[in-house]
Amino acid sequence: MDHHYMKMAIELAQSTLGQTTPNPAVGSVIVKNNQIVGMGAHLRAGDPHAERHALHMAGKKAEGATIYVTLEPCSHHGRTPPCADGLIEAGIKRVVIASVDPNPKVAGKGINKLRAAGITVETGVLEQEALQLNQVFFHYIQHKTPFVTLKSATSLDGKIATSSGESKWITGEEAREDVHYLRHTHDAILVGVNTVLEDDPSLTTRLKYGGKNPVRVILDSKLRTPVHAKLISDKEAETWIITSSLRDPIKKERLENEGVKIIEASGETIEIPDILALLGKNEITSVLVEGGGTVNDAFLRSGQFHQVITYMAPLIIGGQASLSSFAGLGIEKLEEAPKLQVKSIDQLGKDIKIVLSKGDV
Amino acid sequence: MDHHYMKMAIELAQSTLGQTTPNPAVGSVIVKNNQIVGMGAHLRAGDPHAERHALHMAGKKAEGATIYVTLEPCSHHGRTPPCADGLIEAGIKRVVIASVDPNPKVAGKGINKLRAAGITVETGVLEQEALQLNQVFFHYIQHKTPFVTLKSATSLDGKIATSSGESKWITGEEAREDVHYLRHTHDAILVGVNTVLEDDPSLTTRLKYGGKNPVRVILDSKLRTPVHAKLISDKEAETWIITSSLRDPIKKERLENEGVKIIEASGETIEIPDILALLGKNEITSVLVEGGGTVNDAFLRSGQFHQVITYMAPLIIGGQASLSSFAGLGIEKLEEAPKLQVKSIDQLGKDIKIVLSKGDV
Repeated sequence: MDHHYMKMAIELAQSTLGQTTPNPAVGSVIVKNNQIVGMGAHLRAGDPHAERHALHMAGKKAEGATIYVTLEPCSHHGRTPPCADGLIEAGIKRVVIASVDPNPKVAGKGINKLRAAGITVETGVLEQEALQLNQVFFHYIQHKTPFVTLKSATSLDGKIATSSGESKWITGEEAREDVHYLRHTHDAILVGVNTVLEDDPSLTTRLKYGGKNPVRVILDSKLRTPVHAKLISDKEAETWIITSSLRDPIKKERLENEGVKIIEASGETIEIPDILALLGKNEITSVLVEGGGTVNDAFLRSGQFHQVITYMAPLIIGGQASLSSFAGLGIEKLEEAPKLQVKSIDQLGKDIKIVLSKGDV
Repeated sequence: MDHHYMKMAIELAQSTLGQTTPNPAVGSVIVKNNQIVGMGAHLRAGDPHAERHALHMAGKKAEGATIYVTLEPCSHHGRTPPCADGLIEAGIKRVVIASVDPNPKVAGKGINKLRAAGITVETGVLEQEALQLNQVFFHYIQHKTPFVTLKSATSLDGKIATSSGESKWITGEEAREDVHYLRHTHDAILVGVNTVLEDDPSLTTRLKYGGKNPVRVILDSKLRTPVHAKLISDKEAETWIITSSLRDPIKKERLENEGVKIIEASGETIEIPDILALLGKNEITSVLVEGGGTVNDAFLRSGQFHQVITYMAPLIIGGQASLSSFAGLGIEKLEEAPKLQVKSIDQLGKDIKIVLSKGDV
């Protein structure tokens, strides 16, 4: 029974993934006498929390009811009043929680407050699913740096172009649509300046049903990004450039005049830990790394990533010199290769999608 | 009901895969009054066919019974007398067949003979499964060249070694055990001479429960294979070398003295179609291509293969210069890349196994 209603609450949360940042996605269901009397999800930072929506729907029926909520109710005054208080006032009798809040501001305080008010509290119902759902939020709250996903779209043998340089399109429509969903659910998308110079991509979210654009982040130590690049001229979404102390002040001004946010790393080269600290400071909780090969390699060798999502087309391109998704130097010793775990394998049209997480996440 | 018993017959056949060559794997079940009264499988070329074993087990109970057989019963005198005659003599009433025999010597003649004797014959029950089971046999009978499987074992990004050349072991134990099963089910295993010179492999089948060794075939246009190579000195299995008109007659004699069979292609280079014709002529119905990179590339670009089996470890090695499973020149234009279809995806331990077939098989 508890599993059944918690699963509903998780599904409610799931549907809002990508639009609640920097808040987590949370769902809630209120049940009384085996009937659902309220349901809700947190929709956007600043909007009411999931429990508030559900309580509002339930009205007086909340009295004596059980509430299912995917994340521990908050006990502190943030942008909205504490949910724990709301549950107590409404006369809720039992609270079932999937995962405890990792936010040090809350961390069990919501549960304590509820118990002190005589409410039965149970935790850990579908906890893994709830943790998975908000892995980005949990990571960001604990580390203050973004959750990093490395994405690649290759042939079965890891190539992103043929020997003549042909690369459009290796994977099919379904896989490309899925990439747009990934963009929608990430705060930022990151590429190297070479990708901008070579492909002039727009990096926007183009889903059939709309979707949210991520902030477009370019790694560009010498500010070689041209002002006429689509990323700058299309004004479809924010564009940030992370640059080094080598940046030219005139180019900087020109780009800033076009609305680009320039973030300066302290050194002459841009190191991965610096990038992540700078993005974290700018409230980016998740970043989708879309290459090219050299940027992918830098992330791979730094070990500073948490998830790999790879789309593979059912074809072999071959060619030792044909471009690999992870180029550059690569790993020197097998034991130094970051250990990954397969989380899921799916077929999207003719292609294969593999999601892997890093062992230490 | 028919599906149920045919599935049993297919499972009987499945268990003999690899040991019946050049014959197909065939299973048979005899059912009377809803009871199984006989079952059998063809075990080895020269041994009785599946139907004969099942008839023997059923004895007099075969009269009036239904027989399920995965392949059309033979009607010609081969190494054993025709099965169709045996079924008629035993008084079988109904014959259910999964797939018609593609062998031009039989091709419907078995069915006609049975029908002429007043027996009810039904065909096409679990036909796809039966065709899949004997895809190698069907291919060989029709083309007189072996069914070619390209096997690779790589990182997620298609690499077979790190930048420092480390390659042992990228995939885990379960995947390596599965490769030994592949060797067991193939007539021959094929490598280039560079693999022999660099790795000195034994290429034998090392399964926990035994298994059959494939013929070991080396492509070696100039007979550079040393007589002390394991493939030659271990005498564990037959070793054949396909060479060109450039081969040195003295080296040839030395290798032949060690029991190696030397097969000469007509030209100065060894072309893939010639290899397949020569192997077919030598009754090799299936060949497992285990690389290295240049041999894999030659097969890829020739388009002369039917199946790809790839084992992928959950790690990224990266490095543009790190060795790819398919090296050499590779495909120049995307439209020239052979189209593959994903047949199955499995997890073997921590690794992923993907089986793909070529669209035109």
